[in-house]
Amino acid sequence: MANRITPRTLRGFRDFLPEMMMPREKLIDRAKEVYRSFGFSPIDTPALELLEILTGKGGEETDRQLYQFEDAGGRRVGMRFDLTVPLARFVAQHAPKLGLPFKRYHIATVWRGENTQRGRYREFMQCDFDTIGSLAVATDIETALVIHDLMRRMDLTSQQDFTAFQIRINNRQILNGLLDQLGLSEGSTLILRALDKLPKIGAEKVGTEISVSGADAGQVNKILEFASLQGSNDEILTRLSNIIGGNEVGQAGVARLADTIQGIRAAGIDESHVQIDVSIARGLDYYTGMIYETFLTDLPTIGSVCSGGRYDNLAELYTKQQLPGIGASLGLDRLLAALEELNKIEKVATPAKVFVAFFDKQRLHDYLSIANLIRQSGISVELYPDPKKLGAQLKYADERGFRIAVIAGDQELDKNEVQVKDLAAKSSSVCSLEQDGEELIKELGRILA
Amino acid sequence: MANRITPRTLRGFRDFLPEMMMPREKLIDRAKEVYRSFGFSPIDTPALELLEILTGKGGEETDRQLYQFEDAGGRRVGMRFDLTVPLARFVAQHAPKLGLPFKRYHIATVWRGENTQRGRYREFMQCDFDTIGSLAVATDIETALVIHDLMRRMDLTSQQDFTAFQIRINNRQILNGLLDQLGLSEGSTLILRALDKLPKIGAEKVGTEISVSGADAGQVNKILEFASLQGSNDEILTRLSNIIGGNEVGQAGVARLADTIQGIRAAGIDESHVQIDVSIARGLDYYTGMIYETFLTDLPTIGSVCSGGRYDNLAELYTKQQLPGIGASLGLDRLLAALEELNKIEKVATPAKVFVAFFDKQRLHDYLSIANLIRQSGISVELYPDPKKLGAQLKYADERGFRIAVIAGDQELDKNEVQVKDLAAKSSSVCSLEQDGEELIKELGRILA
Repeated sequence: MANRITPRTLRGFRDFLPEMMMPREKLIDRAKEVYRSFGFSPIDTPALELLEILTGKGGEETDRQLYQFEDAGGRRVGMRFDLTVPLARFVAQHAPKLGLPFKRYHIATVWRGENTQRGRYREFMQCDFDTIGSLAVATDIETALVIHDLMRRMDLTSQQDFTAFQIRINNRQILNGLLDQLGLSEGSTLILRALDKLPKIGAEKVGTEISVSGADAGQVNKILEFASLQGSNDEILTRLSNIIGGNEVGQAGVARLADTIQGIRAAGIDESHVQIDVSIARGLDYYTGMIYETFLTDLPTIGSVCSGGRYDNLAELYTKQQLPGIGASLGLDRLLAALEELNKIEKVATPAKVFVAFFDKQRLHDYLSIANLIRQSGISVELYPDPKKLGAQLKYADERGFRIAVIAGDQELDKNEVQVKDLAAKSSSVCSLEQDGEELIKELGRILA
Repeated sequence: MANRITPRTLRGFRDFLPEMMMPREKLIDRAKEVYRSFGFSPIDTPALELLEILTGKGGEETDRQLYQFEDAGGRRVGMRFDLTVPLARFVAQHAPKLGLPFKRYHIATVWRGENTQRGRYREFMQCDFDTIGSLAVATDIETALVIHDLMRRMDLTSQQDFTAFQIRINNRQILNGLLDQLGLSEGSTLILRALDKLPKIGAEKVGTEISVSGADAGQVNKILEFASLQGSNDEILTRLSNIIGGNEVGQAGVARLADTIQGIRAAGIDESHVQIDVSIARGLDYYTGMIYETFLTDLPTIGSVCSGGRYDNLAELYTKQQLPGIGASLGLDRLLAALEELNKIEKVATPAKVFVAFFDKQRLHDYLSIANLIRQSGISVELYPDPKKLGAQLKYADERGFRIAVIAGDQELDKNEVQVKDLAAKSSSVCSLEQDGEELIKELGRILA
């Protein structure tokens, strides 16, 4: 084997080693539990789709970022770049079978040929939930409740509620109403995109960008003044009503925002976690009603970790059936990076809690039996496979982050007992194996509690 | 929107609708629990790899099946076709950080341009576990224990043990020893492949295939006689010892098989689930020691649902470090098809148990509060978002497979109570919402128990 291949991953792609994969799986599991608790069902779609399915909707930028090729059958195909286009295709294709409203979650990998110099990955996981086929305010409220419950479960080191977050909500129609009032509706896309940059580039630069739409200085000021509205949710709602005045679209937006806030209250949510923020616009033209962003109180600069909103027509490319919907996406990678920074991730490289050393090479059957006993009690346990020196085995256990080591030599085993080492507290005790290891299981339970 | 695109998936690819995705997720969750209980850690690798990484090892057939293309940066890349090649690359790349032995599970999608006329999919999920870096018999034993625990958890309709399965084990060295004795070692690949077809095409045709290797009629008979050995594990071991006689390789294989059986006994497994079967050879040349296959007692014809074995050198293409290992793969798709046929899958299209009807359009806040109450108690619940006719809502609940409907109109809500309908038993009762809905939660718990 003269010419070995250098083992490496493609630029922009990465391996997940156990200590990163375990918190990732835990985060995904918790997200699934929350989605399911509201009746969202899982679906999956192919990684590869016909190119025309994927590019029908996307703009030029999307196309350049798309991994596309001709398959062996001569078909132009591409790898999915988000989960929204596949959802649109999926709902259009299976609508009669699915029924409406259709509530789904989809946790899957997507691919984009991003510029890796910006530190972006070309392969990442999306974690979306959507309700298709309903215009009801109940779904606007529920979207906030789901985000709330997702965030509550984000402390991976604990079963306790995570509380250091705030969901910011807005309604796209309010700004539309204001622009309508000001006679600036035609510049709305440009203005929305400019407003989206407010936290990053500040009011002055945003004002300059807005003025490109043809707004005069007074109009720019009105828009910026509007976007900087602050206060309690009720205060903002009152002021919005006054500002929007008689504009029909704008008033509808304010009313919807008010109904959503009241519904969130009725569901018993602590309102400090939900704040109206009329400056959030979510650059995408796609959204037409409520908009949601979610910020971590202790790390606001990383941006929104869960974002979404309401849209009018999901699948117009594939079906004449009008399918309105609402949903949001949990930013898994961003959230994991944040949780790492906030020390909300446990750093271990094994999912097992207990390590059984293979101390005496004649006693493999005893170790197998002990490991089985522990595992049957519901505690995860790894048996070291080789009778190496105990020091090397304990080093292995320590590096991987096992919590407990169970050690027994000839003498202990003859007495039907084992030594239990608490690797964190650096203490140890001797436990009997009599009566199906009752004492051992109890001691392991005590340490792990 | 004149030119709509027909919503469709690529040939050989498929969508997973909720009623198929839910059992799939459940099966994967149970597999993860088992892997973790033995200390196997999750990893993930990119879907795309450099082509040279993927094709270094694969034969011609693999190459033709590979989805490959040139990316925007001019690199030849391919989509992974299994999880073994990525594992080899991964271990070679990260060996110092991982340490040995390294135990990992990997549950991920792979792609192959299979001939779809045979009913094969081009995208499917693999569910592998492996222990790298140990030659110890403890890992041979553990592989059987993991398969055993996987199978035990396969009844998705129940937490009870599934028992209608048998793990068949063999050791590749035994047949190697026999062929060595017969002077037929050079034909071993051909003979192995022929023997692998024994259950499908029968002894006569296999004999004809074996004779191509140069074996005479007597030798063919000896091989077929050997492959048809039956009896208890101990009986077979005794007879194998006699047949293999003084052949060193063969005797080592028999000894390893005996040690593995004894270890499985020591771990307390019901031995009726483990049967030595010297006819299983697993066509792949790849395996060098123990071999495992797993059959469902009530559906033997679907073939092995969990297969694997020991190999000498995982990553020789990428590193000079010799990395022996052992592992197996759970056949997720085949198993799901089998469980469906065996009625071991619950057919529902929602993960939520309780449906709350939106009966009176003035009382949305009450329904939100009731749904929240139920959800906080740990029971999954969906609130219908629109105040449609009750009949339409109950039809929706029924079609999706909710177990319970909670219904309340103006009058009930004014009395602070709700009606609870058991949709399976077609019975109903009235529950008070007093004291945080204690009576309601108790009744829901009773029905769901």
